[in-house]
Amino acid sequence: VCSQWCVCVCVCVRACVRARARGPTPPFSTLSISHPASMITHVELYRPEKRNAMNRAFWSEMVECFSQIAVDAECRVVVVSGAGKIFTAGIDLMDMSSDFIQPVGDDSARTSWNLRRLIAKYQETFSVIEKCPKPVVVAVHGACIGGGVDLITACDIRLCTQDAWFQVKEVDIGLAADVGTLQRLPSVIGSRSLVNELALTARKMYSDEAKTCGLVSRVFPDKEAMLAGALELAGEIAARSPVAVQGTKINLIYSRDHSVADSLDYMATWNMSMLQTQDVLKSAQAAIEKKSPKEVPFSKL
Amino acid sequence: VCSQWCVCVCVCVRACVRARARGPTPPFSTLSISHPASMITHVELYRPEKRNAMNRAFWSEMVECFSQIAVDAECRVVVVSGAGKIFTAGIDLMDMSSDFIQPVGDDSARTSWNLRRLIAKYQETFSVIEKCPKPVVVAVHGACIGGGVDLITACDIRLCTQDAWFQVKEVDIGLAADVGTLQRLPSVIGSRSLVNELALTARKMYSDEAKTCGLVSRVFPDKEAMLAGALELAGEIAARSPVAVQGTKINLIYSRDHSVADSLDYMATWNMSMLQTQDVLKSAQAAIEKKSPKEVPFSKL
Amino acid sequence: VCSQWCVCVCVCVRACVRARARGPTPPFSTLSISHPASMITHVELYRPEKRNAMNRAFWSEMVECFSQIAVDAECRVVVVSGAGKIFTAGIDLMDMSSDFIQPVGDDSARTSWNLRRLIAKYQETFSVIEKCPKPVVVAVHGACIGGGVDLITACDIRLCTQDAWFQVKEVDIGLAADVGTLQRLPSVIGSRSLVNELALTARKMYSDEAKTCGLVSRVFPDKEAMLAGALELAGEIAARSPVAVQGTKINLIYSRDHSVADSLDYMATWNMSMLQTQDVLKSAQAAIEKKSPKEVPFSKL
Amino acid sequence: VCSQWCVCVCVCVRACVRARARGPTPPFSTLSISHPASMITHVELYRPEKRNAMNRAFWSEMVECFSQIAVDAECRVVVVSGAGKIFTAGIDLMDMSSDFIQPVGDDSARTSWNLRRLIAKYQETFSVIEKCPKPVVVAVHGACIGGGVDLITACDIRLCTQDAWFQVKEVDIGLAADVGTLQRLPSVIGSRSLVNELALTARKMYSDEAKTCGLVSRVFPDKEAMLAGALELAGEIAARSPVAVQGTKINLIYSRDHSVADSLDYMATWNMSMLQTQDVLKSAQAAIEKKSPKEVPFSKL
Amino acid sequence: VCSQWCVCVCVCVRACVRARARGPTPPFSTLSISHPASMITHVELYRPEKRNAMNRAFWSEMVECFSQIAVDAECRVVVVSGAGKIFTAGIDLMDMSSDFIQPVGDDSARTSWNLRRLIAKYQETFSVIEKCPKPVVVAVHGACIGGGVDLITACDIRLCTQDAWFQVKEVDIGLAADVGTLQRLPSVIGSRSLVNELALTARKMYSDEAKTCGLVSRVFPDKEAMLAGALELAGEIAARSPVAVQGTKINLIYSRDHSVADSLDYMATWNMSMLQTQDVLKSAQAAIEKKSPKEVPFSKL
Amino acid sequence: VCSQWCVCVCVCVRACVRARARGPTPPFSTLSISHPASMITHVELYRPEKRNAMNRAFWSEMVECFSQIAVDAECRVVVVSGAGKIFTAGIDLMDMSSDFIQPVGDDSARTSWNLRRLIAKYQETFSVIEKCPKPVVVAVHGACIGGGVDLITACDIRLCTQDAWFQVKEVDIGLAADVGTLQRLPSVIGSRSLVNELALTARKMYSDEAKTCGLVSRVFPDKEAMLAGALELAGEIAARSPVAVQGTKINLIYSRDHSVADSLDYMATWNMSMLQTQDVLKSAQAAIEKKSPKEVPFSKL
Repeated sequence: VCSQWCVCVCVCVRACVRARARGPTPPFSTLSISHPASMITHVELYRPEKRNAMNRAFWSEMVECFSQIAVDAECRVVVVSGAGKIFTAGIDLMDMSSDFIQPVGDDSARTSWNLRRLIAKYQETFSVIEKCPKPVVVAVHGACIGGGVDLITACDIRLCTQDAWFQVKEVDIGLAADVGTLQRLPSVIGSRSLVNELALTARKMYSDEAKTCGLVSRVFPDKEAMLAGALELAGEIAARSPVAVQGTKINLIYSRDHSVADSLDYMATWNMSMLQTQDVLKSAQAAIEKKSPKEVPFSKL
Repeated sequence: VCSQWCVCVCVCVRACVRARARGPTPPFSTLSISHPASMITHVELYRPEKRNAMNRAFWSEMVECFSQIAVDAECRVVVVSGAGKIFTAGIDLMDMSSDFIQPVGDDSARTSWNLRRLIAKYQETFSVIEKCPKPVVVAVHGACIGGGVDLITACDIRLCTQDAWFQVKEVDIGLAADVGTLQRLPSVIGSRSLVNELALTARKMYSDEAKTCGLVSRVFPDKEAMLAGALELAGEIAARSPVAVQGTKINLIYSRDHSVADSLDYMATWNMSMLQTQDVLKSAQAAIEKKSPKEVPFSKL
Repeated sequence: VCSQWCVCVCVCVRACVRARARGPTPPFSTLSISHPASMITHVELYRPEKRNAMNRAFWSEMVECFSQIAVDAECRVVVVSGAGKIFTAGIDLMDMSSDFIQPVGDDSARTSWNLRRLIAKYQETFSVIEKCPKPVVVAVHGACIGGGVDLITACDIRLCTQDAWFQVKEVDIGLAADVGTLQRLPSVIGSRSLVNELALTARKMYSDEAKTCGLVSRVFPDKEAMLAGALELAGEIAARSPVAVQGTKINLIYSRDHSVADSLDYMATWNMSMLQTQDVLKSAQAAIEKKSPKEVPFSKL
Repeated sequence: VCSQWCVCVCVCVRACVRARARGPTPPFSTLSISHPASMITHVELYRPEKRNAMNRAFWSEMVECFSQIAVDAECRVVVVSGAGKIFTAGIDLMDMSSDFIQPVGDDSARTSWNLRRLIAKYQETFSVIEKCPKPVVVAVHGACIGGGVDLITACDIRLCTQDAWFQVKEVDIGLAADVGTLQRLPSVIGSRSLVNELALTARKMYSDEAKTCGLVSRVFPDKEAMLAGALELAGEIAARSPVAVQGTKINLIYSRDHSVADSLDYMATWNMSMLQTQDVLKSAQAAIEKKSPKEVPFSKL
Repeated sequence: VCSQWCVCVCVCVRACVRARARGPTPPFSTLSISHPASMITHVELYRPEKRNAMNRAFWSEMVECFSQIAVDAECRVVVVSGAGKIFTAGIDLMDMSSDFIQPVGDDSARTSWNLRRLIAKYQETFSVIEKCPKPVVVAVHGACIGGGVDLITACDIRLCTQDAWFQVKEVDIGLAADVGTLQRLPSVIGSRSLVNELALTARKMYSDEAKTCGLVSRVFPDKEAMLAGALELAGEIAARSPVAVQGTKINLIYSRDHSVADSLDYMATWNMSMLQTQDVLKSAQAAIEKKSPKEVPFSKL
Repeated sequence: VCSQWCVCVCVCVRACVRARARGPTPPFSTLSISHPASMITHVELYRPEKRNAMNRAFWSEMVECFSQIAVDAECRVVVVSGAGKIFTAGIDLMDMSSDFIQPVGDDSARTSWNLRRLIAKYQETFSVIEKCPKPVVVAVHGACIGGGVDLITACDIRLCTQDAWFQVKEVDIGLAADVGTLQRLPSVIGSRSLVNELALTARKMYSDEAKTCGLVSRVFPDKEAMLAGALELAGEIAARSPVAVQGTKINLIYSRDHSVADSLDYMATWNMSMLQTQDVLKSAQAAIEKKSPKEVPFSKL
């Protein structure tokens, strides 16, 4: 990675930061979408004045946004970050309270029925990240609270700043976290004792512990450095064969939920067609010619 | 956490230590049960003169004890520790040997039949910890050997003292660990190479490695500090909504054994009723009024 | 572990290193098999001049080799290492390219059909390590690239030298890793973010990070020390009851792919016969007499 | 079931038949939707001139149609049938051929990628029937070919006329059935030998064999009688508590895909809220007063 | 089966019928237990004046009864039938209504919590039949309603009289059947369409349809003939090796809930000890000597 | 199917019957292999003088035979039948008894270890039928006892003669059937009560009941008619696209062991390449031109 690339990234990041000032990208009211480099889509949580709290609009917009990204041949990797002071304060209690605090239904069973539909819908907001075949790098600064943890556990690679902290907040407001944290966190970090402690006490976890336990794979001194790092990492991924990269993401997620025998069978069934890509030949030739994968032009996917 | 709380806890711990001197709690002969603070039950392995070795009585008493705790509305969290010099020396070979070393049956198949029933019964001794919906914090000092590791892997949060060590002892006495370690340890710590090494060589693991690998989430200088820490942690959990806390435990365990999709579905089906608790409203109001969850009185569960 | 043992091991290791110079063990052309100590089989990847690249012969020979080991009553534990400068450069693109880069078939579906059969066959090369009931300790020095990572994730205990590095190389040549890495790595190390980063970017991971994340359980200063360590570790395992050790391996792997409830049931069904071994009595007596398991002679298995 | 009800149903059926003559219900071009009785929605495949062949529009319209029905509180049960001479001739090869016979992509892997997305989309067309919590009764007359079998195996109750026949047609056009038949048929009928024979030879199965093997639960002399029977059956279902009925469907489908233990656990978690419905009280009172469930007014769901 | 045997059975049955007149067997108030022949236990639902409706006592007594049977070496097979006019009218709404119709709890979530515990407890009432390793033959006469269907689907072999009918009654009282029918019925009979129809409409199914669809494997003209048939069938089972018979039951149930590969593995692990029974030798010798298994004395299990 | 075809088949069958007289096909000593028609392989159990009892050689030869068939491009479908008076008398107790009745090992655990390996090996004998992607039609005449039932439940389509009977014999010789019956029979026939009755009592089931319960899909008057029918059925399968047919078999077996959602996903991943076969185009054209699939020449697979 030459220094010129670094300069380029830095410029780009600064441009991003400035660009971001302009606000959410229509038709979205809570997300700002940009394309900081070729094949990279940057999704920014954009309600800085509300600490990127997740309001009613956010839950729908994420689904729409990632549904588009999933089929956008111009995108090979996604970076998610938060605008303003912190990554996200989690659910916007003010905006959402009617749904959950005063749910409706003619009797308790019917109220339950409506709530189940609502929870399933909100779960989908983060599951779309996982269903999107393009890798998603999330970059966290400041605080990542409640729903924020649900969000980042559905992403593929987690980065954070030195000042970041994480909080599985839900027990503090009287509920078991129901949009992903309890389901995904245990397979995201290696210490079950720690998972339980975080989820049962709602205590904060700071960046150093997040790194040690494996929640994040890298810590950066500040947000600017982190975004530069995230884009560089995204650039590494975007430079590689999308057939290889997206097949890797899909099979890694498959493996989490199936036995090794089943996962190997699925992998063989997957690659029986995917190995017939021109990308293997192109990549192998580049390897023989000692070229970087970045110099190889791959067809869109 | 103000200093007054610390003082209080310390007093309480000292009281406990003293109280403990009185011996097992009838009808139990191997367990001492106490209530060091509101909504907290302390279960102490109590055969100090035998290094808390697990004798025939112990295997039954644990089941009875945790079956009671599971339905005790006065208990919201459990602390488990060991009386005397060490946490536990594991199975009491002297007391148990007839069961396993001279098993009975008219032929080898019938002996197998009887052994299978016996193993299943002993597995239940630790599975009850997991089936109990109240979180269980285990505090280990000195040695935790053989059956002790089976026990602690079934608990939710593991703490230890600086002088603690852990040993998956079973291969040393000619058998594969069959009451939980081989089943639970791999999802408890993050390094599979380490799990295999511990189980295949029966080597000791000391507290620092236990912390690094995630077996325990905190290490304390000595037993007194650890018990204070355990009670403080238990206090944090006891102060929160039992609907939220117990739902969290149940769903975390469910997630371990099911795919993410199945676990999300179960979670939604769980919370469709649990979100209708008054605890959400009480907790949300407390949050808005900047009160601690500890100041909120929740109904019993 | 007395110093005499160390001396002995060192001598043995040096003998090994010298012995190794003699080349592959017929009928194998890529593997060198030796027996450095009682009950220990050493399998060395042996194409040093090709950086132990995995050629067509290798994929078959591993299956044959481990099928023999699986039923060899003289072997209780296996050590795998690489001859020459590095552990392995991964797949031998020159030798294998026709299979994967120019696959054959009358139409795309038939080509897929042939490729699936081929992938399944290559997957089997590493699955045999897992199916072999004897524990496999792998000792990595220098580089472990591509197929090398697939290989080591199928082993039970991973050791490496200070200068070792690991690379999930496949995306660099345009394909999703399909012979085990994506299926096994996530349950081998504790940080999912790191797994994804490694697999999606093909970046190198060095020994210190490999230790921290749990991929390896020990790091040694150099290859000689590592082999001595590997043999010592293997000696610890070989000294214990093979009924206990092999039952432990089989049940640990079973647990990875099944729920805890299912795994406990399987364990009870397993041990109902295995507890009837003489090894339990022998081991228990040795324990009571304060003897080391190493002094107990166990029947072959 | 008094004769008055029969008269009423007959009138209604005749009205339906006449009404049907008017063509598809906008915005749909292939489906005709009506409400022959309270709480019953009738979905008719409506391309009679094309033997209800499934064209491009059909695959989308089914998803839209059942998504609406799933949340339509006015609907408690669905009847599906076909307009014109036969139920359906299956996929409309003319309209669909470009998708499957000339699929696009820059290389074989990319073509595969596009095809997989397409197949998944078409699978969803019938999975929506299963995801819809309202029971779906399907009434088949004449022929039910290829995609028609995929459709009916996703329905809950199958009825047919004496002249109906069924054909798993896909092997005749060179492909393995990929939108549901191979996945659902084995759990729909009891003889695996028959399932295999039908799927591997594409032979026709007539109504009497369909009844004997359990594919359909009732056979009627002609279409008019069948529609009357379907509406009467639908009426029985519509008259019962929607909380009970829809919970029954959801749990029956859950049981198919999970172990009995898991399914019982899910059921208990489901009913812990659903038992709190007023419908239980209303139904129990009606039972005590010897009233029919049909006389009990239940709230909407 | 010689006529002498028939006479003997008939006498025995008549004795049973007379014996039954004496009422429930203490300490049970709803069950009458007898031993009509060697190694056979007869459990009779015994509240004839209440049409064997399942009251509060019944749910506990079944658990106690089958827990005893499970470990009773004198019992190798169980016959279940109902005293009086019908098999069972299902749940005793009068006795049970307070539990389900007026459940308690400080808020809706706590009520749900209590209900879930209650449902799980009632599910256990029938699961004990499945957990009992001795085969259970159930003989149904007259009506088998609601909870009766839950009960019989947990038994191994189902017989009925010509006048028997079955009704999945639950939707009629506003709830989804939650103690086993929805979980077990689909794997008990071969037609899914029929399962759905029965569960969604609560219609009665008569003995001929029950035979055709496979719910029962034999139909008898009247109760006396059925009991004779049940005892004869039970006699066949009781005469065979209990190691073989109980291993067969356990593995058949295991297979229902696991893949074929998993079930074969479990079977091999099971039989590796069970094949070491003397019963194989005894049975093989008897076979060679053309003796009936009934002449072979097997050790108790 | 014109009469000319029938004549042709009859001639062929007679030729077969005569040919069969020549004995087993070297190198096999228990199997006779022939090719009665294009793309059809006939495997005949060939120890008529021993009632095709399964001796030691048989268990190995089946594996070798089906491993060859699995990769034989000249074979698209297999017919299995038995030479002589009956299909098979099951395991050859005389030849096999030493393995199972006098198993060896230094202690009971080691004997178990050896037995487990042996059982797994014998299970493989029938699992190869299932792993072979070509459909297997089995034609049973006379008796099919013990191991014979294990064999036929692993086949895809079952036919029998009017005089055929089936017996799950294992309990009669003191063991639970351990090479497939208990694992596969429950998903092969629709009545669980019947499965249990057959496996627990070892009673005979005759051809009419076998047809009613779905064990066989057709019954023929005698062996000659059955073989003609089997060959005609095999001819129907052989005439279709092997890509379609073998993909159908593989996915039907996959569906049995996985949830519908998982099976649909696997199917889509399978067909994303298989739809790219020329066979679809060829078949579609033939369909448009009203030709039979039999007139279409497909490439080998």
